[in-house]
Amino acid sequence: MHKGRLEAFSDGVIAIIITIMVLELKVPHDVEFRALLPLWPVFGSYVLSFVYVGIYWSNHHHLFQAVQHVKGGVLWANLHLLFWLSLFPFVTGWMGENHFAPVTVALYGGVLIMAAVAYYILVRALLACHDAGSPLAKAIGTDFKGRVSVVFYAVGIALAAWLPWAAVALFAAVAAMWLVPDRRIERQMET
Amino acid sequence: MHKGRLEAFSDGVIAIIITIMVLELKVPHDVEFRALLPLWPVFGSYVLSFVYVGIYWSNHHHLFQAVQHVKGGVLWANLHLLFWLSLFPFVTGWMGENHFAPVTVALYGGVLIMAAVAYYILVRALLACHDAGSPLAKAIGTDFKGRVSVVFYAVGIALAAWLPWAAVALFAAVAAMWLVPDRRIERQMET
Amino acid sequence: MHKGRLEAFSDGVIAIIITIMVLELKVPHDVEFRALLPLWPVFGSYVLSFVYVGIYWSNHHHLFQAVQHVKGGVLWANLHLLFWLSLFPFVTGWMGENHFAPVTVALYGGVLIMAAVAYYILVRALLACHDAGSPLAKAIGTDFKGRVSVVFYAVGIALAAWLPWAAVALFAAVAAMWLVPDRRIERQMET
Amino acid sequence: MHKGRLEAFSDGVIAIIITIMVLELKVPHDVEFRALLPLWPVFGSYVLSFVYVGIYWSNHHHLFQAVQHVKGGVLWANLHLLFWLSLFPFVTGWMGENHFAPVTVALYGGVLIMAAVAYYILVRALLACHDAGSPLAKAIGTDFKGRVSVVFYAVGIALAAWLPWAAVALFAAVAAMWLVPDRRIERQMET
Repeated sequence: MHKGRLEAFSDGVIAIIITIMVLELKVPHDVEFRALLPLWPVFGSYVLSFVYVGIYWSNHHHLFQAVQHVKGGVLWANLHLLFWLSLFPFVTGWMGENHFAPVTVALYGGVLIMAAVAYYILVRALLACHDAGSPLAKAIGTDFKGRVSVVFYAVGIALAAWLPWAAVALFAAVAAMWLVPDRRIERQMET
Repeated sequence: MHKGRLEAFSDGVIAIIITIMVLELKVPHDVEFRALLPLWPVFGSYVLSFVYVGIYWSNHHHLFQAVQHVKGGVLWANLHLLFWLSLFPFVTGWMGENHFAPVTVALYGGVLIMAAVAYYILVRALLACHDAGSPLAKAIGTDFKGRVSVVFYAVGIALAAWLPWAAVALFAAVAAMWLVPDRRIERQMET
Repeated sequence: MHKGRLEAFSDGVIAIIITIMVLELKVPHDVEFRALLPLWPVFGSYVLSFVYVGIYWSNHHHLFQAVQHVKGGVLWANLHLLFWLSLFPFVTGWMGENHFAPVTVALYGGVLIMAAVAYYILVRALLACHDAGSPLAKAIGTDFKGRVSVVFYAVGIALAAWLPWAAVALFAAVAAMWLVPDRRIERQMET
Repeated sequence: MHKGRLEAFSDGVIAIIITIMVLELKVPHDVEFRALLPLWPVFGSYVLSFVYVGIYWSNHHHLFQAVQHVKGGVLWANLHLLFWLSLFPFVTGWMGENHFAPVTVALYGGVLIMAAVAYYILVRALLACHDAGSPLAKAIGTDFKGRVSVVFYAVGIALAAWLPWAAVALFAAVAAMWLVPDRRIERQMET
């Protein structure tokens, strides 16, 4: 099967996820700048999730550059990833409205882990239908960043009960690490 | 007519349907894990509907792989399918909020039947503008799974009044049957 | 300019409009079939608007089949059409919630007229950048159905104050007339 | 990398932003034309934002006509632009609900400035991966309108505290200036 519709459908779902999160930013009824102050945890968690969903879109984009064709199993591995991404608006809203309370930060970290696992499964499903010598297989390599991320998410969840802010800082640090774009595939495609 | 815009529009509508269902997961105001417990029927029905909408997207994708061109009647057969899919957020929300009460499960099954009927009509409309020897005609075959599904939905609706949980289990079993992807078309396209 | 992005953007906006209308169908809190009865005006107006938005998408699709290129003015004529279509969820919700009260039916008719006018302007903008001998120019012809529709909408608005149901029936009749797809362009493209 | 998915994803996000703003138009419960009167500030701010988002889509479309390829940095410059556009529904709703109160107008102007800055950064990121002799580089030129716009937005914000209506008029005037489409790229592509 061609990869075109899988890319288009994923773009659609990710575009909706990244945009409906902003609906959690409820319009305040007062008309002073101070009325915006209580919104900052909601706004902060929106920014963090916008960056994370952007990272997933950007990595998905890089990944599928090197993909030559897809099979039924890849469709479902991809839908599985989209499922976990679709929970971002919920966990972002819960965390933002409750000012990064421990349990909400832990749940946020849990969704981060599940999304990372789903991405890993998607990569495996793609490798299973490409040759070992394909551009995709060469480009993926060891996925060092992916492994480090999961460790950091797990540490963040463990920290959340005592130091929720440290956990959020850790999640933000992982996001910052990913903002440096994944040049493995880009480099592979150019040669 | 080319099939490209029909695919793109369907991808857009299905992407929105699958994503706005998550808006039924209302953010709880308490900040304990226990606050998530009352959400499980809403979450469970979200997962079931996510899988069903994913199945429709995946089958739609497989189906249109083999389509060579479309006509005006196909556009409307497709819009008819999208109409019934668009009711998923409503029936999912009603069923989830009311903990799978009999009448909500029956209505959910009713929408499942109507979507299956609409898919059947779409397939007939496509066959009507393709030759008997076309890849599409060869790939469709007898549609055994489609017929079985409708029977199971009907049994589920009849069961819902007395055993709503058995009905939900039946709907989940049908979904599981479809998760095994429809290889008829995939196989046909490869040869 | 190529027409591809204009088509993709229009597909996206129309897909969202047709889908968010369903959010007006608020989940009832009771769990009896009777709880669905008060929803029927909202459901009925949803069906009518789904069909109308579907008609606009289908006609837009047919129209752009014959388009060879677009200019800046066409982008804005198209955005103008999308603006009026974007008001469908609002006027549909107002009409449905108020059981087709006269003033809500009149406003619905007003948006129908404005959308028809916007479609007419879009067609003119497209003709202005195609030759008189182009497939588009040949396919458009006199646009008899478009003119009749506007007359019927205007009659419907005038009727709404005294006979709102007759006005709704008229709007539904116009929709039924359009469901017979616009074969002018289809025929033109095939020859 | 090809530019196709960046365009498709941007189309998706912008389509959603432009459409969910209409959800701020809450359906009134009364059924008289007078019930619509209190909605006019919300409606007016919706029209203004619809035009602004339309301008960004139209300019984005024109810009990417001349783009030959994209890199990782361009993806993020584009996501940065989409982030500021995603705040339009929020600032539009706040401004409309509060009848263009000074502080809401100033915040609206602030988002206009940030979006303009983000667009400027996107253009720089694109120029950085195209030759000085490329169609893109020739087409961009000095970007006079972009510079003037930012000055006008800044004046509007300064005015907002005393004359919020003058600020809104200024923002509307800038939008009107952009409605005259950016023919630089169109002209460049035709030669």
